[in-house]
Amino acid sequence: MSGAGRLIGVGVGPGDPDLLTLKAVQALKAADVVAHFAKAGNPSNARAIATQFLRPGLTELALLYPITTEAPAGDRVYQSAIQGFFDEAANQVASHLQAGRTVAVLSEGDPLFFGSYMHLHVRLMKRFPTDVIPGVTGMSGCWSAAGLPMVQGDDVLTVLPATLEEAELTRRFRQNEPAVVMKVGRNLPKLRRALIAAERLPHAIYVERGTMQNERLMPLIEKEDDSAPYFAIVLVAGRWWKP
Amino acid sequence: MSGAGRLIGVGVGPGDPDLLTLKAVQALKAADVVAHFAKAGNPSNARAIATQFLRPGLTELALLYPITTEAPAGDRVYQSAIQGFFDEAANQVASHLQAGRTVAVLSEGDPLFFGSYMHLHVRLMKRFPTDVIPGVTGMSGCWSAAGLPMVQGDDVLTVLPATLEEAELTRRFRQNEPAVVMKVGRNLPKLRRALIAAERLPHAIYVERGTMQNERLMPLIEKEDDSAPYFAIVLVAGRWWKP
Repeated sequence: MSGAGRLIGVGVGPGDPDLLTLKAVQALKAADVVAHFAKAGNPSNARAIATQFLRPGLTELALLYPITTEAPAGDRVYQSAIQGFFDEAANQVASHLQAGRTVAVLSEGDPLFFGSYMHLHVRLMKRFPTDVIPGVTGMSGCWSAAGLPMVQGDDVLTVLPATLEEAELTRRFRQNEPAVVMKVGRNLPKLRRALIAAERLPHAIYVERGTMQNERLMPLIEKEDDSAPYFAIVLVAGRWWKP
Repeated sequence: MSGAGRLIGVGVGPGDPDLLTLKAVQALKAADVVAHFAKAGNPSNARAIATQFLRPGLTELALLYPITTEAPAGDRVYQSAIQGFFDEAANQVASHLQAGRTVAVLSEGDPLFFGSYMHLHVRLMKRFPTDVIPGVTGMSGCWSAAGLPMVQGDDVLTVLPATLEEAELTRRFRQNEPAVVMKVGRNLPKLRRALIAAERLPHAIYVERGTMQNERLMPLIEKEDDSAPYFAIVLVAGRWWKP
């Protein structure tokens, strides 16, 4: 489309604003519109990370999820609402692109790694020019904060959501390979049981808000309660690592 | 150790110098010594990426691998030589740290994700203060260059080396999950056979030098020859993705 603006997915990294890339900072400074996802009533985490790089008077587009609690991936009402939301969000972004404006979409971590940006990308990539600026993932931020050598040599790494069923989590952990567990939140008790069943609990490290000022980090075996935010991560070290 | 210098693992990202983080650039500017790994006779890739951020007159420490060809991980002679090399490299770094100098170790991608830095880290972390500055991984650079939504929702991602045996590669691909294959190089014919056996070849994207100026990127099914550099990556999209 001639004269159309460019859609740019911008990874803002795991939390520390100094972990934005030079390219991300340049893109934010040059953008006509900066868009960000958030739950209604909550500030956008990605916007909070990138706030110092947004110029005064910039046009911002807040894309507010209609649903504030998690639902099972198979839930049809949830799926329908969320797909409708992404359609509408893509329409809002498209109207800026059609008017020739560059739209940078802020993404925590890396845009195409569990990021909401991808739902705009797949809807708009055939109609508009797109760029994706990769970012430091939340998991890289967490294992760096922990100083944990995550994978080496011929290791196989599995990244899995704690939303999987307990038996499936246990089966995965029994493969005795390094693993990163995302979306811990209310799944922590189940995750803990699966790690115990697979005899991997002593290798697990719990990280909350990795690289941020209020980072919390401890061996999971020493964490006394079962409360955890949705974005907490558990790192399971490989067998060769002695904590 | 009082008065000792700090050891800093610095992720320099996947190749584009603009994909260094602000924090990495600051660390390189402040370092007394910058160390980098390379094969003897070859320039360090990490140094090439970061070269514009190194100040004139900086002390550099080149750590040159004694072995220039890959060997099976189980090869005892190779293992002994490589462990001896890392011991000696750690000693060289330690002598700078003991003298109170900050040593930044350049790491392609992310330092603790398949990086040689971790071999220094595990040898020195108990003797000296350490920091790890996470970087954008090579795989993030590759899927961003390809514009490929890699993982979403409750996907499980597997990162595996192409050095695995063919039957094991096939078994992994049959799990029908998104996957990233590292260390492609001479393993490409085997990898291709495993993808065909698992009926995943149409979902595979081949990426060489992702984010660099001479990047090459194509559906693997369209790649006519079997030559590939060691650091080429193959991305296998999830079943929900229609290329």
